[in-house]
Amino acid sequence: MRLYSFFRSSASYRVRIALALKGLPYETVSVPMRDQSHRSDSYRRINPQMRLPTLELDDGTRLIQSLAIIEYLDAAYPEPRLIPADPLERARVQAVSQIVGSDIHPLNNTGVRGVLASMFGASEQALDTEWTPHWIHEGFAAIEQLIAPAPFAFGSGITLADVCIVPQVYNARRYKVPLDEFPRVLAVDAAAQAHPAFQTAAPEAQPDAA
Amino acid sequence: MRLYSFFRSSASYRVRIALALKGLPYETVSVPMRDQSHRSDSYRRINPQMRLPTLELDDGTRLIQSLAIIEYLDAAYPEPRLIPADPLERARVQAVSQIVGSDIHPLNNTGVRGVLASMFGASEQALDTEWTPHWIHEGFAAIEQLIAPAPFAFGSGITLADVCIVPQVYNARRYKVPLDEFPRVLAVDAAAQAHPAFQTAAPEAQPDAA
Repeated sequence: MRLYSFFRSSASYRVRIALALKGLPYETVSVPMRDQSHRSDSYRRINPQMRLPTLELDDGTRLIQSLAIIEYLDAAYPEPRLIPADPLERARVQAVSQIVGSDIHPLNNTGVRGVLASMFGASEQALDTEWTPHWIHEGFAAIEQLIAPAPFAFGSGITLADVCIVPQVYNARRYKVPLDEFPRVLAVDAAAQAHPAFQTAAPEAQPDAA
Repeated sequence: MRLYSFFRSSASYRVRIALALKGLPYETVSVPMRDQSHRSDSYRRINPQMRLPTLELDDGTRLIQSLAIIEYLDAAYPEPRLIPADPLERARVQAVSQIVGSDIHPLNNTGVRGVLASMFGASEQALDTEWTPHWIHEGFAAIEQLIAPAPFAFGSGITLADVCIVPQVYNARRYKVPLDEFPRVLAVDAAAQAHPAFQTAAPEAQPDAA
């Protein structure tokens, strides 16, 4: 398999964690977002949405959207299982994952920051100190009430919720957003950081880290 | 079952479609977003994220986040199946659903519009004619390449992709975003609008429509 990825891309980071947890080998194809490589014609042919990541399977099939990719990996390579089979447990894990994947991260990604700057004159400072913290606080405040670390978000096994929380904590730290109000989120992050798969998948461990 | 819903809420609309397709009866509890009812203390006790919808099961269990709720319904009431069982087909359907659910709708919802106005002075006009169309265009341009209506997004059966596309087309029309560039998206919407479940779930058919 081949992962079109960028070290800092939060959605790529999620898929890297899932691949590492399942012990699946893959080749990294770096798509440096900082020089807009994801908007190039060549990458558009790989991923019509021009976003990261894309997972290319050995037969050339390409999958996009990190949560859809992880659901595929979880069905095709069920060990260890990241999304519970029980419908209610599954819904709880998916709800937390969607809070990160729909209501925090898409508002704070690089593309949105660019549009906010060009369309509304949002300054870097306002983005870093007002906009970004606002959505992280709203989302983490809800997640804080939905998880009960033991030590992972939903018990002793790692789930998709942990896979989503950790890259979002990384982003929050990158923008220096205080997280003291969210001890459960921080506990999940600390437990995950001690796990080798999360270390392997971390931004700074990637071949394109800079 | 009880659905905390608002007629215009796009995420509520998705869950209403799924409930109607599966023929599941439910009681609607209206949470009028226009007077900020979803931010009240009483609703916070129902849904810690203070967003719509919430599905309350007969035993009192509450589920949040529309896509997580629909996955639950699809597992608990598999007829008709909205999310394919085959991992690759599933990933394709989920990818389109996530483009709507992560990369279009969360950027254009009422809460975000409010923050854009207060934080960056975004005018109603700029939100309606620049910001909203921008994200709809980006997302629909990708979806246009990922679906092949026959007549639904992934063939003759309705999937989660259709359930997500239709409320997003409704939103696009509400903000008068031209959709001529997206004939496939429009074809899916037209096919779905002819189906009784989509009619039952439509905003204007809700008890709290105004």
